[in-house]
Amino acid sequence: MTGARQPLGIGDVRRHHLSVVLGELVDRGPRSRAALAQRTGLTKATVSALVADLLDRGLVEELATPPAGRVGRPAIDVAASAGHVAGLGLAVDVDHVAAGVVDLTGRVRVLHRRPSDNRAARLGTVLDRLRRVAARALGDAEAEGMACVGGALSLPGLVDPAGTLLVAPNLGWTAIAGDDLVARLGLPAGIAVTLDNEANLAARAELRFGAGRDLSSFVHVSAGVGIGAGVVLDGRLVRGAHGFAGELGHVVVDRTGRPCACGSRGCLETIAGSAADASSDAVAAALAAALRSVVQIIDPQAILLGGSLAGRGDDFAAAVGDRLQGAALSARWPCDVRPARLGPDAALIGAASVALDAVVADPTLVPRRSPADRTA
Amino acid sequence: MTGARQPLGIGDVRRHHLSVVLGELVDRGPRSRAALAQRTGLTKATVSALVADLLDRGLVEELATPPAGRVGRPAIDVAASAGHVAGLGLAVDVDHVAAGVVDLTGRVRVLHRRPSDNRAARLGTVLDRLRRVAARALGDAEAEGMACVGGALSLPGLVDPAGTLLVAPNLGWTAIAGDDLVARLGLPAGIAVTLDNEANLAARAELRFGAGRDLSSFVHVSAGVGIGAGVVLDGRLVRGAHGFAGELGHVVVDRTGRPCACGSRGCLETIAGSAADASSDAVAAALAAALRSVVQIIDPQAILLGGSLAGRGDDFAAAVGDRLQGAALSARWPCDVRPARLGPDAALIGAASVALDAVVADPTLVPRRSPADRTA
Repeated sequence: MTGARQPLGIGDVRRHHLSVVLGELVDRGPRSRAALAQRTGLTKATVSALVADLLDRGLVEELATPPAGRVGRPAIDVAASAGHVAGLGLAVDVDHVAAGVVDLTGRVRVLHRRPSDNRAARLGTVLDRLRRVAARALGDAEAEGMACVGGALSLPGLVDPAGTLLVAPNLGWTAIAGDDLVARLGLPAGIAVTLDNEANLAARAELRFGAGRDLSSFVHVSAGVGIGAGVVLDGRLVRGAHGFAGELGHVVVDRTGRPCACGSRGCLETIAGSAADASSDAVAAALAAALRSVVQIIDPQAILLGGSLAGRGDDFAAAVGDRLQGAALSARWPCDVRPARLGPDAALIGAASVALDAVVADPTLVPRRSPADRTA
Repeated sequence: MTGARQPLGIGDVRRHHLSVVLGELVDRGPRSRAALAQRTGLTKATVSALVADLLDRGLVEELATPPAGRVGRPAIDVAASAGHVAGLGLAVDVDHVAAGVVDLTGRVRVLHRRPSDNRAARLGTVLDRLRRVAARALGDAEAEGMACVGGALSLPGLVDPAGTLLVAPNLGWTAIAGDDLVARLGLPAGIAVTLDNEANLAARAELRFGAGRDLSSFVHVSAGVGIGAGVVLDGRLVRGAHGFAGELGHVVVDRTGRPCACGSRGCLETIAGSAADASSDAVAAALAAALRSVVQIIDPQAILLGGSLAGRGDDFAAAVGDRLQGAALSARWPCDVRPARLGPDAALIGAASVALDAVVADPTLVPRRSPADRTA
């Protein structure tokens, strides 16, 4: 067993408690200090001190006094702040570049998307396009008084655990170190951006803000020309040893089928990818066949159909679910199949949430503000 | 996102530190207090106090003074104790019942296995057989001065997250609550036993004591009449939402193949299960096809071939690995395929380790011994 055991120091405990309180507010919405104390098991005095710390960092805010009608001193609710700290989401896909700014409550506050054929363009040209939309997004965020603390760049390719893009076949990009790529975007110092796979980031967004919010395990299918998936188990994204977990598009559903660009035959992508232009029924049948393997191997609570599949609606999801239940083992304990919720910007939201998750895990990443700032 | 965030109290921190120290000794073998301090980042004084506590609970022991030859006071090594606390492993399979006792270092100290055709027998008869081997194993352990703190019962079937056996097709057992089943074994009070799936427990044993010891992610294939698998990610077993993760035997590898008992066609089990009596080449090809889906979906570091597959040796594992790499995506980042290490008693060892893992996670589960006991 690989040991990740580490002792805890006093600072760790305080960080952990700050994270507990901020996480409650982000996950479950505004509530009073007393309710926070009850929910977390911390004393009211401890919660008050932690909230004061989080206020000082601009991570939470006090909501206006609730309407009168209750006797006694009104409880003031505390909420995750939508006003100060934000995450930056960047995306390059085959047909567009985009940059967005997402606040701690998951709202997309700024979005710039520029259609462009990135398959035909040189790397430098694509990065120039991305640099321009990123600069505009950051400018808009600043104008609204928001500070981006970091983020991620979504790419339609395989990213290894060290953050290197191994290959993005549809862009023709191979072996690019994340740091090198990000350096060419000319982002302001202090905004750390990592690379990640589009399907992983979309799943992450659905987990935090979308259809996966109340699930601890699901597979989010992200369909377009290619078909990727984000695998979430125990509330965490599974990346795989080499970074290519979730390559659902290359699960073989028909050994005698069409050749796939990957070198195999009858991969899901050759039938259900948008380029295959197959009938809805054929797509549902191929998806169900590939998802049967998913269910047998990891038995998730639900399958979320995202990307272009989300637009096919509830009836299509139900059709896939019916075919999946035709498999005997899963018939008895069905796996729920439903559309994803966040639409085409899921990966961008997920990219921004990388930074937001880091802040929730360790609120001390955001410095305390000076007294002058606080009165502003 | 489902929140498992909890605040930490002082007792939690101490428990955590005890767990850190005991875990180091169990995972990495004997070492001095100074080495433990260096490795864990705790002060030497803290480590000494924690070791004293663990000595008092009989969980660690001091090794004899190392041979002379070094100047100064010799460092005394501390080791996980093989002498006091143990886990009880129980197993029912189609052709035998077994009970074993495993110490904190992973050694099987007692093993009683009784061949019997459990397919033809009534539930009560099978439980009587198990009760007898369990009583003998516990008697032998007591004679050696060891106390079993708990364990698990390995079954060839699906066990849900609440510990209920949903179905064990080859035994003809369905819907048995774990507590009811265990109550019929007449175990002494204080020995808590839960039910688990054979493939899960075998994977758990390989993770803690076998071929998975240095891996954080792997899939352990447990082959016999049926084919199950244990999926380990981030050093933890993946159970699935309904308890049937790892049902590798029912991944379809040939849509037009033989009907399977599960109601589908061409499941891996119909080709590579021992009842199919297929050639080694056909088994390797079918395994590789099913494992390709595993690799695409979760991208583990390695595949461990256990059960009857382990006996086929390194050449067979290499043949499966070669066929798996034939799939283009994994060719570039190959997944290691190798035989498992613990042999036919892997599930029994895993069953015992359920209790040992609980003790490592929280050493305070084992009470401090009275002064009289300590001098004994």
